Amino acid sequence: MVYLDNGATSWPKPEQVYRAVDECLRSGGNPGRGVNQSSLEMSRIIFEARYELANFLNIPNEDRLIFTKNVTEAINMVLKGILETGDHVLISPMEHNSVVRPLEYLKENRGISYDLIPSDSQGRLNISEIESLITENTKLLVFTHASNVLGTVLPARQLVQIAKSHGLYTLIDGAQSAGNMEVDVKALKADFFAFTGHKGLLGPQGTGGLFVREGIELEPLIHGGTGSNSRSLKQDGMFPDDFESGTVNMPGIAGLKEGVKYSRDNLTDIISSKQHLMEKLMDYLLDKSEIDVYGPPSSSISERVGLVTFNLKNIAADKVGQILDSEYEIITRTGLHCSPLAHRTAGSIDFGGVRVSIGPFTREDEIDQLIQALDQIINQ
Amino acid sequence: MVYLDNGATSWPKPEQVYRAVDECLRSGGNPGRGVNQSSLEMSRIIFEARYELANFLNIPNEDRLIFTKNVTEAINMVLKGILETGDHVLISPMEHNSVVRPLEYLKENRGISYDLIPSDSQGRLNISEIESLITENTKLLVFTHASNVLGTVLPARQLVQIAKSHGLYTLIDGAQSAGNMEVDVKALKADFFAFTGHKGLLGPQGTGGLFVREGIELEPLIHGGTGSNSRSLKQDGMFPDDFESGTVNMPGIAGLKEGVKYSRDNLTDIISSKQHLMEKLMDYLLDKSEIDVYGPPSSSISERVGLVTFNLKNIAADKVGQILDSEYEIITRTGLHCSPLAHRTAGSIDFGGVRVSIGPFTREDEIDQLIQALDQIINQ
Repeated sequence: MVYLDNGATSWPKPEQVYRAVDECLRSGGNPGRGVNQSSLEMSRIIFEARYELANFLNIPNEDRLIFTKNVTEAINMVLKGILETGDHVLISPMEHNSVVRPLEYLKENRGISYDLIPSDSQGRLNISEIESLITENTKLLVFTHASNVLGTVLPARQLVQIAKSHGLYTLIDGAQSAGNMEVDVKALKADFFAFTGHKGLLGPQGTGGLFVREGIELEPLIHGGTGSNSRSLKQDGMFPDDFESGTVNMPGIAGLKEGVKYSRDNLTDIISSKQHLMEKLMDYLLDKSEIDVYGPPSSSISERVGLVTFNLKNIAADKVGQILDSEYEIITRTGLHCSPLAHRTAGSIDFGGVRVSIGPFTREDEIDQLIQALDQIINQ
Repeated sequence: MVYLDNGATSWPKPEQVYRAVDECLRSGGNPGRGVNQSSLEMSRIIFEARYELANFLNIPNEDRLIFTKNVTEAINMVLKGILETGDHVLISPMEHNSVVRPLEYLKENRGISYDLIPSDSQGRLNISEIESLITENTKLLVFTHASNVLGTVLPARQLVQIAKSHGLYTLIDGAQSAGNMEVDVKALKADFFAFTGHKGLLGPQGTGGLFVREGIELEPLIHGGTGSNSRSLKQDGMFPDDFESGTVNMPGIAGLKEGVKYSRDNLTDIISSKQHLMEKLMDYLLDKSEIDVYGPPSSSISERVGLVTFNLKNIAADKVGQILDSEYEIITRTGLHCSPLAHRTAGSIDFGGVRVSIGPFTREDEIDQLIQALDQIINQ
């Protein structure tokens, strides 16, 4: 099997991720809920995972890093935690449903509003138009660090700078960036950085997190037992405990810790390997008159994260995906990728696309197989 | 190591749980997000897990069973999903912070109110007083199926019946009951039944769920990508997809499926083993004048789920827990168990207690070791 769906979930994971999950499950215990050895061992794993993540993403204070079950929970925590009636939000025109659907909910139920920053069809924002969209009610700018459909890497620092100069909060959706490119949360200066554990960070599904800049108060999305200050019936927003109510995904976090360590130790190699494979793939795709490619015509990881969405001009995306799967055992992802906005931006909302997303373990011969398969499908 | 903290998380898990988690992680793929083989295999695992759970808990329609990251998320989904300004809630005086803290939040931020049903110090409710506490604003009755501190099994059917006769919704917190005693959701007739995957159901941490009775509409707690109906920016409460936004804990659910199957296949043996061990332990504890036991003086699983909390009269709970851990390698749980209400009910709010909770793999000689250790501590 040739797995080219790392944008959905990375596979395979490093061997040490599998082992850490298994060891954690087999050794048992709940973190922070007692003084016994097994509980302390679990607390140690969480502490280390938080430390490794903060270190890798250059998060200034690991206490401000919250573990969530996925990036969607992290994004919901911010949007529902800080937006109030009358607030206005600006978002990129490539946001995932994890951003747009909570906003639609808040629009209907809490009276917020939101607007899209215009862009070209490749997802390059019309930066100069942002200021004219900011009103006195604008509170937050949300943007994906890298589009899960177009691959487009957004100019994060510049966007944060513009937002800050107008007193807006900023939330970066790092679902496709963390682990896939250099991410320096401190340098980005964003107020919130949401990420998932099971894509570029090579951890298991069921993990993710949120960085909240120091000084920002946030209402937890989920209230409940935290193992700390148990006598109190209130949760006053103490970081990170008050944002991790209930039993956490202990084996998942143990695995994520190892995924992050692997990513950190191999980031340069991972990026250069992806760079090389993306060049080969993009050269082929852009050269084929039978193929429409979405997103920037670049293969540089700084402009396009390691994924590309395209369509064959005469065959529906779903059909291409099925043929690749059943006849060539090549796994891609078709449809709208939970990002109708991005497909609207690309002009592919009516038919979706075939997305190829490479991972740290993708080999050159696998890209060759994909290219050969596409050639054969085109020439059939 | 003698592990007697199964009320926090069950350990060990059946071997097939470890294997299923590992196999799922190693085989990769995201469910419901594509048409390829690996994605379909993941969808199959989730479908089967939902089916097995519904079957085991006698949930009439598995589509009404939502997977969550833990029981806390499930409880928050109900409380924040249906309570509106002015609503009044009745709860048992043994509720976990996963119930009380969201209610406190809603009291402060949404103008709801709640009252405790009175009980004796063993957690037996004054049923006859319930009706006098119901006002025209009372919307919901919430109660733990079995207390995580006192062990007390609440008369669930009777409570639901009273609530229904007054038109109230009912939410049962099954954190300590599911897998530990016979649970028949259909017969209970509750509107909502919340459970966790990693205690009695023998699955991994990071899993749990919620049953929502057919006909009840609920607002999701977390909005986002669901893999279904991706073009729509709205989530209209379609079960179960709209309540499982974002990538689910795939390996966790794979493990939970096996835990549930094990529980189902062995429930009679598990209950009779627990019954036997609880009798032995309770006989000892109740007989010792140096020990205060909380909760009903019964060892019958129908009155007391397989756990007991106690204090040695002259030694603080934390100290006893530490000695048991460091000198005897016996793992218990001390403190308030995230349930200050229950400790207040028991009269132990100022010092907490030592909780012993047995699991399906607890052996008689381990209970003997605990008894010997307690004897030695008392006689020191």
